[in-house]
Amino acid sequence: MNILEKTFNDIRRMKVRGAGRIARFAVKALEEYCLTLDFSSKEDFVRKLEEAGEYLKGSRPTAVSLPNAINYVINNFKREAYNLEGEGSLKDSFKRWCEDFIEKSSNAVKNIGLIGSKRIRDGDVLLTHCNSEAALSIILTAHEQNKNIKVYCTETRPKFQGLISASILSQNGVDVTLIVDSAVRYFMNRVDQVIVGADAIAANGAIVNKIGTSLIALAAKEARSRFMVAAESYKISPQTFFGDLITIEERPKYEIVSKDWLSKNMNVKVSNPSFDITPAEYVDAIVTEVGIFPPQGIFILYKEMYGFSFKDVLQ
Amino acid sequence: MNILEKTFNDIRRMKVRGAGRIARFAVKALEEYCLTLDFSSKEDFVRKLEEAGEYLKGSRPTAVSLPNAINYVINNFKREAYNLEGEGSLKDSFKRWCEDFIEKSSNAVKNIGLIGSKRIRDGDVLLTHCNSEAALSIILTAHEQNKNIKVYCTETRPKFQGLISASILSQNGVDVTLIVDSAVRYFMNRVDQVIVGADAIAANGAIVNKIGTSLIALAAKEARSRFMVAAESYKISPQTFFGDLITIEERPKYEIVSKDWLSKNMNVKVSNPSFDITPAEYVDAIVTEVGIFPPQGIFILYKEMYGFSFKDVLQ
Amino acid sequence: MNILEKTFNDIRRMKVRGAGRIARFAVKALEEYCLTLDFSSKEDFVRKLEEAGEYLKGSRPTAVSLPNAINYVINNFKREAYNLEGEGSLKDSFKRWCEDFIEKSSNAVKNIGLIGSKRIRDGDVLLTHCNSEAALSIILTAHEQNKNIKVYCTETRPKFQGLISASILSQNGVDVTLIVDSAVRYFMNRVDQVIVGADAIAANGAIVNKIGTSLIALAAKEARSRFMVAAESYKISPQTFFGDLITIEERPKYEIVSKDWLSKNMNVKVSNPSFDITPAEYVDAIVTEVGIFPPQGIFILYKEMYGFSFKDVLQ
Amino acid sequence: MNILEKTFNDIRRMKVRGAGRIARFAVKALEEYCLTLDFSSKEDFVRKLEEAGEYLKGSRPTAVSLPNAINYVINNFKREAYNLEGEGSLKDSFKRWCEDFIEKSSNAVKNIGLIGSKRIRDGDVLLTHCNSEAALSIILTAHEQNKNIKVYCTETRPKFQGLISASILSQNGVDVTLIVDSAVRYFMNRVDQVIVGADAIAANGAIVNKIGTSLIALAAKEARSRFMVAAESYKISPQTFFGDLITIEERPKYEIVSKDWLSKNMNVKVSNPSFDITPAEYVDAIVTEVGIFPPQGIFILYKEMYGFSFKDVLQ
Amino acid sequence: MNILEKTFNDIRRMKVRGAGRIARFAVKALEEYCLTLDFSSKEDFVRKLEEAGEYLKGSRPTAVSLPNAINYVINNFKREAYNLEGEGSLKDSFKRWCEDFIEKSSNAVKNIGLIGSKRIRDGDVLLTHCNSEAALSIILTAHEQNKNIKVYCTETRPKFQGLISASILSQNGVDVTLIVDSAVRYFMNRVDQVIVGADAIAANGAIVNKIGTSLIALAAKEARSRFMVAAESYKISPQTFFGDLITIEERPKYEIVSKDWLSKNMNVKVSNPSFDITPAEYVDAIVTEVGIFPPQGIFILYKEMYGFSFKDVLQ
Amino acid sequence: MNILEKTFNDIRRMKVRGAGRIARFAVKALEEYCLTLDFSSKEDFVRKLEEAGEYLKGSRPTAVSLPNAINYVINNFKREAYNLEGEGSLKDSFKRWCEDFIEKSSNAVKNIGLIGSKRIRDGDVLLTHCNSEAALSIILTAHEQNKNIKVYCTETRPKFQGLISASILSQNGVDVTLIVDSAVRYFMNRVDQVIVGADAIAANGAIVNKIGTSLIALAAKEARSRFMVAAESYKISPQTFFGDLITIEERPKYEIVSKDWLSKNMNVKVSNPSFDITPAEYVDAIVTEVGIFPPQGIFILYKEMYGFSFKDVLQ
Repeated sequence: MNILEKTFNDIRRMKVRGAGRIARFAVKALEEYCLTLDFSSKEDFVRKLEEAGEYLKGSRPTAVSLPNAINYVINNFKREAYNLEGEGSLKDSFKRWCEDFIEKSSNAVKNIGLIGSKRIRDGDVLLTHCNSEAALSIILTAHEQNKNIKVYCTETRPKFQGLISASILSQNGVDVTLIVDSAVRYFMNRVDQVIVGADAIAANGAIVNKIGTSLIALAAKEARSRFMVAAESYKISPQTFFGDLITIEERPKYEIVSKDWLSKNMNVKVSNPSFDITPAEYVDAIVTEVGIFPPQGIFILYKEMYGFSFKDVLQ
Repeated sequence: MNILEKTFNDIRRMKVRGAGRIARFAVKALEEYCLTLDFSSKEDFVRKLEEAGEYLKGSRPTAVSLPNAINYVINNFKREAYNLEGEGSLKDSFKRWCEDFIEKSSNAVKNIGLIGSKRIRDGDVLLTHCNSEAALSIILTAHEQNKNIKVYCTETRPKFQGLISASILSQNGVDVTLIVDSAVRYFMNRVDQVIVGADAIAANGAIVNKIGTSLIALAAKEARSRFMVAAESYKISPQTFFGDLITIEERPKYEIVSKDWLSKNMNVKVSNPSFDITPAEYVDAIVTEVGIFPPQGIFILYKEMYGFSFKDVLQ
Repeated sequence: MNILEKTFNDIRRMKVRGAGRIARFAVKALEEYCLTLDFSSKEDFVRKLEEAGEYLKGSRPTAVSLPNAINYVINNFKREAYNLEGEGSLKDSFKRWCEDFIEKSSNAVKNIGLIGSKRIRDGDVLLTHCNSEAALSIILTAHEQNKNIKVYCTETRPKFQGLISASILSQNGVDVTLIVDSAVRYFMNRVDQVIVGADAIAANGAIVNKIGTSLIALAAKEARSRFMVAAESYKISPQTFFGDLITIEERPKYEIVSKDWLSKNMNVKVSNPSFDITPAEYVDAIVTEVGIFPPQGIFILYKEMYGFSFKDVLQ
Repeated sequence: MNILEKTFNDIRRMKVRGAGRIARFAVKALEEYCLTLDFSSKEDFVRKLEEAGEYLKGSRPTAVSLPNAINYVINNFKREAYNLEGEGSLKDSFKRWCEDFIEKSSNAVKNIGLIGSKRIRDGDVLLTHCNSEAALSIILTAHEQNKNIKVYCTETRPKFQGLISASILSQNGVDVTLIVDSAVRYFMNRVDQVIVGADAIAANGAIVNKIGTSLIALAAKEARSRFMVAAESYKISPQTFFGDLITIEERPKYEIVSKDWLSKNMNVKVSNPSFDITPAEYVDAIVTEVGIFPPQGIFILYKEMYGFSFKDVLQ
Repeated sequence: MNILEKTFNDIRRMKVRGAGRIARFAVKALEEYCLTLDFSSKEDFVRKLEEAGEYLKGSRPTAVSLPNAINYVINNFKREAYNLEGEGSLKDSFKRWCEDFIEKSSNAVKNIGLIGSKRIRDGDVLLTHCNSEAALSIILTAHEQNKNIKVYCTETRPKFQGLISASILSQNGVDVTLIVDSAVRYFMNRVDQVIVGADAIAANGAIVNKIGTSLIALAAKEARSRFMVAAESYKISPQTFFGDLITIEERPKYEIVSKDWLSKNMNVKVSNPSFDITPAEYVDAIVTEVGIFPPQGIFILYKEMYGFSFKDVLQ
Repeated sequence: MNILEKTFNDIRRMKVRGAGRIARFAVKALEEYCLTLDFSSKEDFVRKLEEAGEYLKGSRPTAVSLPNAINYVINNFKREAYNLEGEGSLKDSFKRWCEDFIEKSSNAVKNIGLIGSKRIRDGDVLLTHCNSEAALSIILTAHEQNKNIKVYCTETRPKFQGLISASILSQNGVDVTLIVDSAVRYFMNRVDQVIVGADAIAANGAIVNKIGTSLIALAAKEARSRFMVAAESYKISPQTFFGDLITIEERPKYEIVSKDWLSKNMNVKVSNPSFDITPAEYVDAIVTEVGIFPPQGIFILYKEMYGFSFKDVLQ
């Protein structure tokens, strides 16, 4: 099994979690793959990279960071490659763009931490769901600023990613309490702010994130607790501008019940959607690496950073 | 370990689940205990029964059916016992009241099924949480009436009682889909009615039930899906008339995480409340064994069936 | 065609509208029918009356006043008939009960007017839907008290009963404005109170009334306009205590489109439900002939006036 | 100025505040008045008492406790007086009924404290408005039970009754913070429960209380903070059963602005309503001296305690 | 009657319906008018076109597409006309701009269909109101993609434009059910998405559309059904940026009642507003020919496509 | 005490109120200060101006217009000063920029009046809170347009700024009614539009304004009354783009209670926050001097007018 297959499988099997890590993981794999790549011509090199990119995009169809990251490194490289000759310089160029993305992406998480942590006040009680690097960055940065905070982590069935969040926060000295997912409304009245990540952001400001997020947002709204989404700008899905619905991945039922139980209950169906959609009206603010936005204005950011123009669509 | 200790432990450790079954289980234990009881006088017999009753009441402080059931059999027996003499006739009388309660209680579940199932229409999609005898009775009765229904069962963390519900429904031929608790909002728009049980009903119509119930009720309200509570009349908590808050049991953290995980994450707190409280405004109707009530009117039923009078309180 | 058939058809074809008028119309028909009735024995007389009653009940399955009225006159007569002999005295007795119902029912509308009009203040802007005697009684009584009021009447598709209301109010000197049904939200911010009738009231306080009522209630809630239901106590449906759902009548499609249009558009389906259901939470108060009730408490009134006891159900 | 005039003025000028104190103050005045009363016959005595009662009822038209209290002592006395003769026994009888009311009314406040305080948990943050004996009784009782509580008091413009509440609570050792009325939403997210009194309760469960109460209830609802009303059973207004709207007293504008300011701004109107109306749906529970009720069920209590029957109305 | 008068009347009398068709109809009329126009000079030609344009703008004051379309063709022509001489070339130029608009406008509807249909899933139940080309384009495109859909059409009183929609959809093989306008809440729980057009969109994202639209949006919100608006970018009203309220046209009362009925009910007023306003918060997404927008962001699109700058306003 | 100290104190003690007036007051003080300033070099002049600016910024930390105004005049002057020499020309330049700001800022209020008044219809009932120049400009402009309006002014505790608004409006002939702050819900059903100012606007569209504003917005939402914010573009807080929370000033407790009362109630705490935060979802439109915006789009305006770019942040 080569590096691409291994990476594909690791993403598919959720060994790598969190959209930022997936994006960097895939870019790192492309970088490694490129270094060992045999090719007959520049065109062949580009084609093989593109094939590799398309292959990796298939490992998590709903992780919008994955195609954004892969497009970023391949397209930037292709523009530069017109002037390059020789195996060494081609590989050097591609490697540089990969390193560039990885650095920017890593800084994104840190910058989100710096920006978002300003909104956490001393004494705040927070709640987070699943295991989002960007959300944890905000919480940990606030903690490093010596703000006295308390955090509820949901366990996040079926894969228990909340236990990873609880471990990380606790190891960093944060006061953490673990609860089951359905206890969210029970504790919400004590919570000042909910902070979650996002797998994708749609054109109308809706947030695609781990199953359960929209339910937490609803409970936060009911209790007037603030609901903050931490997301790198590459989480914005450009396809949604043109109507595409974001596909909600249906994951294996064995994540929920054992094969043994299922064999005894063969007629019980199991439905295991990975994500749900939180409408813009339940989100108070989106924290990105370049500032804070109302969810209904997030598409402006995408337009500006990626030079997307409505007029172009008219041709 | 005698019958009382065994019963206490079985209830405490949730080997017996569902308020109706707990009530009958405790009454059955009292009946068995009484049959083997040595006593010196009628007064001694009554006192020992009362001690046994108080002991069993302690096994699940939030299961309001438990003290209601125990009070029912002991108080009715005491009224009758004034005219009785002799070990045989005393034990016969107590046994009769126990059988009476068990029969009425069992019929309650069946009657709830008959009444509630009328509100299920052919083609309805239902959702249930945890494992409530009364709620399942409604669903199974509707199924027996050849109504074409589809049921979502939440797995109900941390003890997975939803898997029991799914098994029972599936074994009876009902079309069942199992989902994680936090997927409730994802599926709610397809759900016509939510049907859950209750562990207790408060004077102001609030429902005490398995953790997660109030979150489901909130999501049902948001989507205009109906929310029906199935509950025997003995679930009404008379103490709440006088202001008592129903104690929410905090259960062992090992139900949520393994000892192993916890030993590696010693600073992570775990909070495991058994129940939450659904406000009356999220409940469309309460189905009891004697009819359907708005939650704000349920205390009238208690007053009538148990002869409770507000004037008595004034002395 | 005899008096029963004619009455059946007149009700069925909506020549008679409004639940109160339907109830009195049916009772009047039974009274006339009884006077011409040949019978062989008291038992035969009772049986023929019961058959006639059951026949008339079928003319409008959702008009809950119809079976209530018919049961009222037949059951009261049957209780009295045990002591009666002779054709004359039997017919006299039945006639008396019919007159009793008609008088009480007519007074009900007047009493509702007296009670409800107290809640209308000088200068109020009102809105009514369809053509309810009880609702108009409140409005006209307020007008007779020289309160300066203004009324919006919806036209009430498909049968335009709102035009009848507008005519009646205008002929009595009330300032009336007619609007299409879908303009309700446009005008709602100017409306102080909505006043509608009810075809039936369910055990949990939900109101069954002319299609569109629940939409008006929703718009009233959104604008904090009060929503008052005017209903005689015989509109309360006892079957709903035991779970029965009130059947929503599907009426002929030719009420909505012409046969000509439909013949050109044969594949277009038409759905024409007569009623919808307004949940209790959208209703501020129910005005009956014996006082004002919160919708969640209306079943207490039924219990008291009709001697209905929950304990009876337990056998 | 005699005792009646002085009492009338003291109530009118709000020297006596709080519905319970007004009721007892008026009854005490009637008692004193009766002791000095010259009369020519029993009929004359009764008539003079009734005239005195009607006079006092006019001092605060919206204080429903006032007519309820006056009716209670006069009607009970009248029933007893049929069998009495002589000035001494007549005055003794009336005095007894006055003392009876004062005792029961005072106990009511204490009982409300006992019942309501059970709903306050250790650590709760409370908010109260105006100066209600019954609401303070709950808070002080909870404090005496060594529950650690913190209370926000609104200043309650225009008469600053909130300062009296703050003083009383503080003098009893409660941790009190005074805020302006419009800061209620700013602080609401920290508040667990709002506890207020009531001047009257309507048949449909709506609460009449000091201006600003309904705004606080709305803010509590928005933040999922509980809203509890503390009210003696004599606050229920029987007239509202028959449609009467409770009159909202318009008080002098000089309570809001000085005469000096107004003379410089003669065209500025000032509107100073004493009360507003909180709809039943914003109230979680009503605590009375005989138990806790949902607002929609409070009329049942009145019916039972005062023997009011719907059938009686039908004649 | 010349072409302008005929066009004016056809628009005024609603022979032409739907904002896109009105815009193209007016532009087509201007084109025809120009071809037959006698003029003395270029200035005279321009002036006569401008007069004709202003005349046509008066035929439907609320159809924002009308002035947008007329301004588009006249202003673009004027810019080009500076360099032109001779009757032929002037008329050719104006004709070209008219054809340009008509083509772009027609493509707009098709593009909206392509973009919006992606948001319709197989099995969706839709609801539409009135007769909007853009909304029908989405539905028909989804149908052509072999998605299995079911559509409810409201009849849309008073002019029954919903019957036209039902006909068109049915003729294209779509499963259509026609309902009265006030039945919307009755059916809403079965509806996945509402799709309507817009007559104008205001700066703050509010939608001006056929009377009844805002009521449907409210019912959709209550039931968590999605509410999608299909609108060409020329529906955005630039005047609203500067505070102008969009005029709601009051149409003839004879659209609602017959002259005969009105002559018998002369004191009944009739109010017949053409449009109502749906607030931004009830709209999930606006589908335009260049992509999908949150309603609160739609003004960005206008700014970009029409080169409108905030700074320009500052002079 | 020099001009800076006097200005600092006047702002601090709220002798100057309203963000626009504060901004111009500070700029005017800087202008006067500059004219009397002794300095040794251009660098010294600039430094002294910057120190003066920083000093004045400290007088009201939450008045976002203050630093915006000061930065505007100092930064523009500094850019120009590079080419200037000599005391006269330096002082002339700085003076010009101060006058420029004052003129633009004053015109802003007038332009807001022109734009916002278009949204007020003849017959509208308005409500305003505190004393905002921009809000009053809209109301007075509408009044000058001979629109028949009626205005409720809250007194605005603790400093009674509402009395100033009431005076100004009344002196200009507007029909004004003064009410206490907590009467807002009582009167809201009669109010068509609420118009308030803003002290600052956050990146996510939230409004920072006088304590009580968010409570009024909530009551307006509940009653479907429109809520319009009038604010100059310099009220937008750029720091909030990067996460900064706007500091809510805690003002002296003696504004609420007298020293005398407090000395008798030493344990009563007093909390006196100046502002609260109204979430974007409660705001229908923001009226600025350059047009009307949805709150979620207001940051676009700031970006355009101040040339702020997201990309710049990325370095």
